[in-house]
Amino acid sequence: MRLAELSERSGVSTATIKYYLRERLLPPGRRITATQSEYDAEHLRRLRLVRALIQVGRIPVSTAREVLAAVEDDARDQLSRLGTAIEALPHGPEPDESDPSTAVGRRTATELLRMLDWRFNLEIADGFPAFRMLVAAIAALHRLGYACDTAHLLPYAHRAEQLAVVDLDLVEEFGTPAEQVEAAVALTVLYEPVLLSLRRLAEAEESNRRFGTGR
Amino acid sequence: MRLAELSERSGVSTATIKYYLRERLLPPGRRITATQSEYDAEHLRRLRLVRALIQVGRIPVSTAREVLAAVEDDARDQLSRLGTAIEALPHGPEPDESDPSTAVGRRTATELLRMLDWRFNLEIADGFPAFRMLVAAIAALHRLGYACDTAHLLPYAHRAEQLAVVDLDLVEEFGTPAEQVEAAVALTVLYEPVLLSLRRLAEAEESNRRFGTGR
Repeated sequence: MRLAELSERSGVSTATIKYYLRERLLPPGRRITATQSEYDAEHLRRLRLVRALIQVGRIPVSTAREVLAAVEDDARDQLSRLGTAIEALPHGPEPDESDPSTAVGRRTATELLRMLDWRFNLEIADGFPAFRMLVAAIAALHRLGYACDTAHLLPYAHRAEQLAVVDLDLVEEFGTPAEQVEAAVALTVLYEPVLLSLRRLAEAEESNRRFGTGR
Repeated sequence: MRLAELSERSGVSTATIKYYLRERLLPPGRRITATQSEYDAEHLRRLRLVRALIQVGRIPVSTAREVLAAVEDDARDQLSRLGTAIEALPHGPEPDESDPSTAVGRRTATELLRMLDWRFNLEIADGFPAFRMLVAAIAALHRLGYACDTAHLLPYAHRAEQLAVVDLDLVEEFGTPAEQVEAAVALTVLYEPVLLSLRRLAEAEESNRRFGTGR
């Protein structure tokens, strides 16, 4: 298909598509004349992922390029591509090593993961951005004096485990390994606001049950 | 206590405390001389909440002031103060009414909440920022062609329900209604990165189980 059709089918303006092409977020089309290129279904799929990352995930262009490079890297197996792509996503502030609460955060996060029956290698945990994000989050709770020991964190970890099964079931609905890696990245980003908004709505509901009229 | 002690006990620099006082994020101390004021345990607690909102939640000062006004409003009951404070938190982009996917998002979100046994009044759902956030999140999934019907969303809603029970149990560990409202707001913000990082770690674990060596 030509640029105009790619724009129509994706709902992304031709100006934005040209910008993504310039920024190498989208592979170039197959050139057919001096001024026209031909695009295919893979471009359409990639455009969907780019929009998920940039418009919904609000991920900087340079970070999105890193995520996509991992998704595309055919030299590696699916698990490794998936892992690298997810790790390239933004993970919030890094742990502040000058803050004593960070040591508590790291100890608690390590203890929590040890309690779960996971294959996760704790020796190299600090190499994982999601682990460092967890350390920083627990450190913030600790620094502000809120309860954040493993007894408080385990219920969250168990819900996260159950959600990951739902997430991966959804990913496996996609046919090819390439589509599965793309979907895993997009759905990780797209389901975060779903989860956070549902938690806030459920909190309002539960507050109403506990503190509402009738009690 | 004097400013220096408030700074030492809270771990917040005197310059930052003075900034919070100027921005009315912290109520003024009781003036004892022309240059000195006296602060109490309530200032210390409030400082903790301000840091949770601004440093961890990265909430703009003007929004934080709105959240705190709701927390402080003694004229209203606990449920109403709590609801208003949580609603004043940032909720991400608003639904784009010019996008046809938004209608799908709203219909799906309404259907989802109808399936849950909640007291939530669907007639006024659009008045709730968390509902609009859910509508926008489902619309993004739909626009990008990802599955987002109630069958896909219900497992997330059920986990959110379970997390809300854990969240409110934690809130009820605090003694007074004022402390409970403060804790509810702080814990809503502080546990979001805990939940998101644990979901990413659990996804890595589940991917490893499904796609890792041995399969």
